[in-house]
Amino acid sequence: MFLFIMTDELLILNASQLVTLKGAARPRVGAEMRDLAILENSAVLIRDGLIVATGATSEVAAQAASQCQTLDAANRVVMPGFVDAHTHAVFAGTREDEYEMRAAGFTYQEIAARGGGIRSTVRKTRAASAAELFDMALPRVRWLLEHGTTTIEAKSGYGLTLDDELKILRVIQSLNRDTPLELVPTFLGAHEIPDEYRRSDDAGQARTAYIDLVISEMLPRVANEHLAEFCDVFCEAHVFNVQESRRILKAAKELGFGLRFHADQLSLGGGSQLAAELQATTADHIEWIDEAGIAALQRAKVIAVLLPGAVFNLGLTKYAPARRLIEAGVGVALATDFNPGSSPTPSMQMALSIACTQMQMTPAEALTAATINAAYSLNRGARLGSLESGKQADVVIFDCADYRQIPYFFGINHALTVIKKGRVVVTQKSLGEKPIENCYTR
Amino acid sequence: MFLFIMTDELLILNASQLVTLKGAARPRVGAEMRDLAILENSAVLIRDGLIVATGATSEVAAQAASQCQTLDAANRVVMPGFVDAHTHAVFAGTREDEYEMRAAGFTYQEIAARGGGIRSTVRKTRAASAAELFDMALPRVRWLLEHGTTTIEAKSGYGLTLDDELKILRVIQSLNRDTPLELVPTFLGAHEIPDEYRRSDDAGQARTAYIDLVISEMLPRVANEHLAEFCDVFCEAHVFNVQESRRILKAAKELGFGLRFHADQLSLGGGSQLAAELQATTADHIEWIDEAGIAALQRAKVIAVLLPGAVFNLGLTKYAPARRLIEAGVGVALATDFNPGSSPTPSMQMALSIACTQMQMTPAEALTAATINAAYSLNRGARLGSLESGKQADVVIFDCADYRQIPYFFGINHALTVIKKGRVVVTQKSLGEKPIENCYTR
Repeated sequence: MFLFIMTDELLILNASQLVTLKGAARPRVGAEMRDLAILENSAVLIRDGLIVATGATSEVAAQAASQCQTLDAANRVVMPGFVDAHTHAVFAGTREDEYEMRAAGFTYQEIAARGGGIRSTVRKTRAASAAELFDMALPRVRWLLEHGTTTIEAKSGYGLTLDDELKILRVIQSLNRDTPLELVPTFLGAHEIPDEYRRSDDAGQARTAYIDLVISEMLPRVANEHLAEFCDVFCEAHVFNVQESRRILKAAKELGFGLRFHADQLSLGGGSQLAAELQATTADHIEWIDEAGIAALQRAKVIAVLLPGAVFNLGLTKYAPARRLIEAGVGVALATDFNPGSSPTPSMQMALSIACTQMQMTPAEALTAATINAAYSLNRGARLGSLESGKQADVVIFDCADYRQIPYFFGINHALTVIKKGRVVVTQKSLGEKPIENCYTR
Repeated sequence: MFLFIMTDELLILNASQLVTLKGAARPRVGAEMRDLAILENSAVLIRDGLIVATGATSEVAAQAASQCQTLDAANRVVMPGFVDAHTHAVFAGTREDEYEMRAAGFTYQEIAARGGGIRSTVRKTRAASAAELFDMALPRVRWLLEHGTTTIEAKSGYGLTLDDELKILRVIQSLNRDTPLELVPTFLGAHEIPDEYRRSDDAGQARTAYIDLVISEMLPRVANEHLAEFCDVFCEAHVFNVQESRRILKAAKELGFGLRFHADQLSLGGGSQLAAELQATTADHIEWIDEAGIAALQRAKVIAVLLPGAVFNLGLTKYAPARRLIEAGVGVALATDFNPGSSPTPSMQMALSIACTQMQMTPAEALTAATINAAYSLNRGARLGSLESGKQADVVIFDCADYRQIPYFFGINHALTVIKKGRVVVTQKSLGEKPIENCYTR
């Protein structure tokens, strides 16, 4: 009688550059962001979904079981999967009509004032059932995975009623359970004042009523059902001002939510200072942050989540001051802001290209921001975001030999093979392309 | 005894939008650029590499042979293949090191002054054999095809000796013959003053000697061997000034070359005026063009080839005045400027996204610029760039139902199936994606 022990081992070998990003017990800051801890001509061994070894191919291969599955990464870059720390990936409808309007000269704010923008997506998202939203999200999940993203933060915020916000958060929960993508849920009930709270003769009173609804009904319910880890607010003069944002975020903090929120995106409104005051995990966007705000983030160890895709896509020119943030010692993360209005891209590679060319981040800084720092911004830095023993095996093989080519050759997808928890979930092949063959011999 | 007649028929049916762009006997200008001549729920029938019918699926299908191959394009956009009217796609080496330097604050011109830039690629390209250059170009050809580009203009200009320029042009000829991509060759001997003509004590005399070489030896030889259809010059104060450019281009014109050249890219130098004076086919870049230049292009019917990818990638903010050009009635084309320095993207979809967001072109204008107008700029408007009977069947099926989504969802590749001369040359598939099945039944 034999006891057959199923080993679930995968050996990725001969990587031209194994970009490990290992050794960071907290977000990398300053010059640390340029240190990718690259191992050349190296291998990573994965067992039961975890990384068990990294190092020279011969040494790592010696630890592998003889029937181990192998992937040859010769002339290729192997990296941790991207962690996209700011998305609105669950939505109904697309907004290419507004995209066209912007080409005709309308600004994002003007389109919003006409009932477009976020409120347009809210109407469509409310009209969709949970099952429909789930189905609509699936091709986007596939896009994310195909482009090398293995974990995302995903916000609600297109419901703006108790039931619709819960619906979106449950869809996020289902996607997390039923697809290979890992989703970290954030409650964003305070994304916009919904239409029905704008029709009052006393708009101020209606605003307050909506904020009361968010605080008194939505937040406790989301907390009770454990549907979100973080609470977000769109803190901006024309949306929720600093006082309103503080009220919501303090209530969320008391309920145990982590805080991450839209700050200083379209104007300098004090959002970054508020993030520091409330010890938020992140301050996101911060295109308009000033020196005092930068110093405040640094002191409070708030991570800056930069979203250059939205600046690019809206045709704006004021990007977040990435260089100043890095020089000041703020932990910087990058994200796509994937959403149907301001930033319709699921590609972290695109975010890297925009970061390098428009914010003068080096490719190394951008990769750090897109992996280990983003993982820390989601409280997952101990499990995700680097390739080292004991960490979860979220690994991407890129079809280039130098990591700098990932942002450099832009507008294309370099991800070839995407591995989540040790399992190959995407393998790109096309006609004329020699595929990476899975083989069981060494 | 049976006579078996092989019909080479392909029927693409049920397209949500068949973007035909038909009916233009010259480049579209002004408001015409917004007219894509879209047929909804329609089909295109291809026979022996040519389009034989477009229209309602039932009507077109009735004309197809019973054993015709079919592709179902339900919920998909079908368009002409992109024509990329300005590339430097044949080169050796990559320049991600300079990309990193730009993040550290060096300008393109400063890097060039240190021996980087074009001259860096020249050194590597000279060192490569024709066979090596061909092999290096193959994955780039695959990138171009995969992203829906079926025809490109391809320049020499990284050789800068007679033999090396001929070598590059012969590689372009080989790629045109041996791959599905159609390449239109342009001689760009006057891309830069090569190193060996900079070491003289009398730099002015050495410059003149190089220009003499281009005019007296290179141009006649390229003409005799029929290795290029067009002649290009990098007309810019620090490269070839207007007087030098005029001399070279006039000599080229006398030898029968069409003229297309780099004008007013980094400064207003009179290049656009020169293009009009010489009745060039195109003036390319023209970021710094003024109103007089725009009027000159319009009067002389010179097509403006805009290259926003280079502006984006160099981190500059001054894009070509696309709206003014369109309003003034200049025929506008878009291209990637694919090259290893200023614009390392092979994706016309990326060029569209930058054009729409940074130059406020509408998606329709951008598509016109990337297909039929680009085809006219290569003297191929009668054969390529639109879907209508009698034209070559260069067709792309995009995985979206509205053409505006092609630029809108940016940084990703929407091309699903790419057909060149009636033959399927790329079919994208990935895990979890339901592939389009080729089938022989209807």
